[in-house]
Order: sequence, then structure tokens, then C-alpha cells
Amino acid sequence: MPENNIYEADATMVQGLQFVGRGAQSGVAIVLDGVKAHGGLESAIRPMECLLISLASCTGMDVISILRKKRQDVSEFRVEVEGVRAEEYPKRYERITLHYIVRGPDVSEQAVARSIELSQTKYCGVTASLNSEIEYEYTVESEN
Amino acid sequence: MPENNIYEADATMVQGLQFVGRGAQSGVAIVLDGVKAHGGLESAIRPMECLLISLASCTGMDVISILRKKRQDVSEFRVEVEGVRAEEYPKRYERITLHYIVRGPDVSEQAVARSIELSQTKYCGVTASLNSEIEYEYTVESEN
Repeated sequence: MPENNIYEADATMVQGLQFVGRGAQSGVAIVLDGVKAHGGLESAIRPMECLLISLASCTGMDVISILRKKRQDVSEFRVEVEGVRAEEYPKRYERITLHYIVRGPDVSEQAVARSIELSQTKYCGVTASLNSEIEYEYTVESEN
Repeated sequence: MPENNIYEADATMVQGLQFVGRGAQSGVAIVLDGVKAHGGLESAIRPMECLLISLASCTGMDVISILRKKRQDVSEFRVEVEGVRAEEYPKRYERITLHYIVRGPDVSEQAVARSIELSQTKYCGVTASLNSEIEYEYTVESEN
């Protein structure tokens, strides 16, 4: 097993641009694929989508954990993410916008704002590994 | 459908720290989860693993595409990736090492080196979106 602060993974080609990616810590595998225009089968998630999903789920896990510690009763929680890519190759994400949508019977807007701020400034390892400009907004929806 | 240079995705909480992430371009969903120590079920890939897999598959798709254009006969191809996280939160990836392993009956080492260099400097959108120090090495294995 790798050391605690070392994460390992691999991606193995299957056919076309289809790869199976595996995380060494979890032992879990996922499939990735490219677009047909580049020789892919379009059978699976794309790497640049996967990057956005890594970000949304990482900060999402932070925020829901903090909201639970703050005794907030959250019934539904979703993070939407939009990444604007540069026009020229390598078409990096220049700007990424996160939209946190929290639903529950009596969720405090202040608690949501603070939880997101903590994730974005202190806890989220994916956010901290990106060089993109990252903005966020949130919506708190009352259950009734 | 979003514009060509805008990628969209979302991550929806299921239970504990389990999320379903979905890419809007592919329409494909993947499951993510956190560790038990943080309230997760450890049922799926972790966000920080997913980030490494995004990187390995993105540059892997570039490299295999370029090798095919160079008429290289590749029978097996794998990208291993190791990320060293900071000791302190947010534990960003300070350094990432990619190891490209290419196997085939008569693969040119020079073609492999050039393909990786092109991916890392010109084409890979995930590489270009990370602020980590990224290093790489490669192994060319003859089939016989």
C-alpha cells in the first residue's frame, strides 16, 4: 500500500481511445473514452468531464460533511459545474463556476455560505490542485 | 447543448459521501465516494483518485493517437500515475509523476518520447489545468 500522502492510479488502453482507469487506494475502476472525431467510441466519461466531476464531488463531500457537523438537515444536494476552456490547445480550463444547490426543511443560508467558503479556501484538494480561476454561487431551497 | 468550449457536469449526493457525477457532453454518469473515516461508504472511486485518472487518461489518449499517426504498432499501453499530496490541508498534489508503458513488436523509443512531449507541452487539457509540478518517464517494451 502506498503512503498516506501518496495517491496512485493508472489508465490502461482497451480499444480506440477507451481506457480503464483504476485508483490504487479504493481499488475501484472506471471507464473513460474520447470523442469519435478523435478516434474514440464515445462509450464513457471523457477525461475533461472527469476533471470537473472530481472537483464537484470533492468540494461537495466537504460541504455536506460540514453542513452535517453544523446539524443542518439536508434532504437534497447537488453541485453543478461549468468549465470554460481556452480557444487554443491545450484548451485548459481558464474559468470554472460551481453552483451548489442545497435543499432541506430549514437549512441556514449562512451555514451553506460558510461551508462552501471553508471547502474552497481550506479543505478541497482538487480545487487547490487546479490553476483555473474558480468562482462559486449557491442556492438554498426550502423544502416546503 | 453547451457551446464547444464550455464543458458542463454535476455531482448529486446519494447517501453518506456517495455522489453520482454526470458529464453533460457524454451524458455518462460515474459514482464517487469518500473514505469511512470521513463518513463515506468507500463504495466507489475517490475524487482525488479521479483527478489522477483524468490526467492519465487525457495524456494517454493524446499519446496513443499520436503514436498511431506515426504508424507505430502498439499492442499494450498503460499510464501509471503517482501524486504526492501536501502534508497540510487542502493537501493539494504538489508533484505528480506519470509513467508511460508502451508495448509492441517494433515501437520506436524516439516516437514515444516525442508523443509524450507533444501531449505534455501542447495538447493535454488536464495537464494544462493543474498547478502541480508534473514529471514523466516512459518504458518501451518489445513484444518478443
